[in-house]
Amino acid sequence: MLPNLMPDVELAEKLFAELKARSFDGVGITREAYGPGERMAHALVKDAAEAIGLESRADPVGNLFLTLPGTDRAAKRVILGSHLDSVAQGGNFDGAAGVLAGLAAVAGMQRAGFTPARDITVMAIRAEEAGAWFPTSYPGSRGALGTMPAADLAVRRMDNGVPLRDAMRAEGFDPGFVERGEKSIGPESVAAYLEVHIEQGPVLDAEEIPVGIVTGIPGSRRLRAGRVTGEYNHSGGTPRKYRKDAAIALADLAVALDDAWCRLEAQGHRMVCTFCTLATTAEAGFTKIAGEATFMLDVRAVNLHSCDLLFEVLYAKVAEIEARRGVKFDLGPEGGSRPSPMDAGVQAGLTRAAAALGIPALVMASGGGHDAAAFAQTGIPAGMLFVRNQHGSHNPHEAMRMDDFGKACAVAQRFAAEFGI
Amino acid sequence: MLPNLMPDVELAEKLFAELKARSFDGVGITREAYGPGERMAHALVKDAAEAIGLESRADPVGNLFLTLPGTDRAAKRVILGSHLDSVAQGGNFDGAAGVLAGLAAVAGMQRAGFTPARDITVMAIRAEEAGAWFPTSYPGSRGALGTMPAADLAVRRMDNGVPLRDAMRAEGFDPGFVERGEKSIGPESVAAYLEVHIEQGPVLDAEEIPVGIVTGIPGSRRLRAGRVTGEYNHSGGTPRKYRKDAAIALADLAVALDDAWCRLEAQGHRMVCTFCTLATTAEAGFTKIAGEATFMLDVRAVNLHSCDLLFEVLYAKVAEIEARRGVKFDLGPEGGSRPSPMDAGVQAGLTRAAAALGIPALVMASGGGHDAAAFAQTGIPAGMLFVRNQHGSHNPHEAMRMDDFGKACAVAQRFAAEFGI
Repeated sequence: MLPNLMPDVELAEKLFAELKARSFDGVGITREAYGPGERMAHALVKDAAEAIGLESRADPVGNLFLTLPGTDRAAKRVILGSHLDSVAQGGNFDGAAGVLAGLAAVAGMQRAGFTPARDITVMAIRAEEAGAWFPTSYPGSRGALGTMPAADLAVRRMDNGVPLRDAMRAEGFDPGFVERGEKSIGPESVAAYLEVHIEQGPVLDAEEIPVGIVTGIPGSRRLRAGRVTGEYNHSGGTPRKYRKDAAIALADLAVALDDAWCRLEAQGHRMVCTFCTLATTAEAGFTKIAGEATFMLDVRAVNLHSCDLLFEVLYAKVAEIEARRGVKFDLGPEGGSRPSPMDAGVQAGLTRAAAALGIPALVMASGGGHDAAAFAQTGIPAGMLFVRNQHGSHNPHEAMRMDDFGKACAVAQRFAAEFGI
Repeated sequence: MLPNLMPDVELAEKLFAELKARSFDGVGITREAYGPGERMAHALVKDAAEAIGLESRADPVGNLFLTLPGTDRAAKRVILGSHLDSVAQGGNFDGAAGVLAGLAAVAGMQRAGFTPARDITVMAIRAEEAGAWFPTSYPGSRGALGTMPAADLAVRRMDNGVPLRDAMRAEGFDPGFVERGEKSIGPESVAAYLEVHIEQGPVLDAEEIPVGIVTGIPGSRRLRAGRVTGEYNHSGGTPRKYRKDAAIALADLAVALDDAWCRLEAQGHRMVCTFCTLATTAEAGFTKIAGEATFMLDVRAVNLHSCDLLFEVLYAKVAEIEARRGVKFDLGPEGGSRPSPMDAGVQAGLTRAAAALGIPALVMASGGGHDAAAFAQTGIPAGMLFVRNQHGSHNPHEAMRMDDFGKACAVAQRFAAEFGI
């Protein structure tokens, strides 16, 4: 029988305000991965955790572990984790909410004099927003889990060219840990990983439900450097049959894939398909037919087979449009990731906790990628809890009601207190 | 009965080479309207004309009139005209070919000791490529014809902000001429205007015909600052029904108009429809749904009603896409021009001349706009003769065989010698 636990939401609120004050860049929030913004946030959170008596340690790649000891210290721990870095000119909640939810949960346990059965560790993970700084995925969590390829240490920060290896070293950490294939945590020491995160879409807000229990993180197939080449010609002087119009060829492809997505979704495929960019180039201009256009395509689905079906349409359409419009597509290198289903036991635990607290929860897929994927892929039971959020993520207008955040903290707290006992 | 006239193509060739040598910018040809490049070209052509004894004068807005006197000096003259300016990094032939064809024609008459019935004037017109320098149409020819609105003197050169009025003055001309509504030529003094010009499309080359007799210059309806506003959102986290995707909305519109164009053309409408640009903006990027996109649309037809039919589709589609995709279109200000049919008598004269010379000629519409439109709109019988051309216009790769140019010179020469006698 659990005591009447309450998360310490005031502590989190105080820390949100501090974080914001120290990382507002004039437009939004900037906390660079393996840079000053992230360093500041880790120091702030570490101090707050030590002030309430949590055990604190960092691993050689800079992840921070803040632990409330359990009665059985040899038992596998429960981790409540997320990241503290942000995109440039982003918001205050993407990432930080998960770390502060963890702190609020364990601080509340401590305030209530509650000792959990097993250690509960708040983990502040490094560099989850690597996509905005270093072109690799999850160097912090994969560094901790021993699954980061050593070659990824050579990727360079996109704005200043500094290699990830050097950025780690400059922050006082040891990239050799990755090179030697070492790890600081793994399935043998972690019972479950739970990541609280603001929803990056509008679903919870539209459905008027405060929290979401995530079923999985989608896999993806991605083209970041697609190109169509046609021929620049005079827009007045070139009749239809002589045109090689790259702009209309690209529009054609975009509409065809959007139609195919719509059709696949009607057949039950859960997926998204986005032309994130789609543009004629600088040489285009008035009275010219566009000879070149570029695009970025992002296709994601919980079942990678859905992505494959869309890519089959892509290949067929490309061939058809090339033949019909006299253009040439270059899809460029393809990137992507495998899907990561969330653990059924963790989902069940979250559902139980929310029900016990009377908090409505929506079962939903994640849209974006998260550190939880890296945990799931090593076999650690992983789950995510989304918080309703009004203005998306990765922008200065990110919004989250503290009342909803408090509900997520309460579910996470109860989940952590109960898991595996 | 005409003597056996031959154009002096060698003179033109020499001048093409000089022009190129003096206006090659490292990439292409640049002869700025009311600027150094155009000034150089006018001086070169004036010197060449005076060297062969033509009468030479310039009007107050800088157009150059190089006249071979006819037997009846009081009769309305025939003008063989075109422009000497170019777009930035353009080609050597767009514009200059018409002026040099005129010179070759009259030089050939003079060499043969032929005196025409009426004055034949080679007219080097200012600033036809105003679209590339000053945002107005035909300031040179409309300045000569007294149809340029005085307000257009205030437009500023797009790259350096200098008002057209000041650019004219700096070249030694008198914008007051335009302000006072004066004119240097008009229907009372001009029997016909003929403009030789490289075709700006690939039709003559594809059809293997050296010259084209132009039926008309199309009218146009144009949007230079179209915009779609949706909402930036996370590409993974935002399901289809919550999206306001500006990129796909714009692609949708582009494909719908392309389809409508195809349909109208099948019904006999002669027209072109071009999304010259179509682009997400700088804020777009990977893992985002585009919240904004811009476009430029250029619709032209010999019969303006065809443009209107396409714009009806545009309005209907915009409304439908706004409703379906939750975006908002802003079409921006609309520009355009009335169509200018070429004079039937001039067309007949060109057809007769080509037939007499055994030169195959294709009857065709113009794609682009030309000074001939300004002449036609004042009631001067105007016509155009296109020259086969291999790599379009407005680019450094413009090509024209001297043999084809010679054929156009011969047709123009014979037309001028015969017209109205």
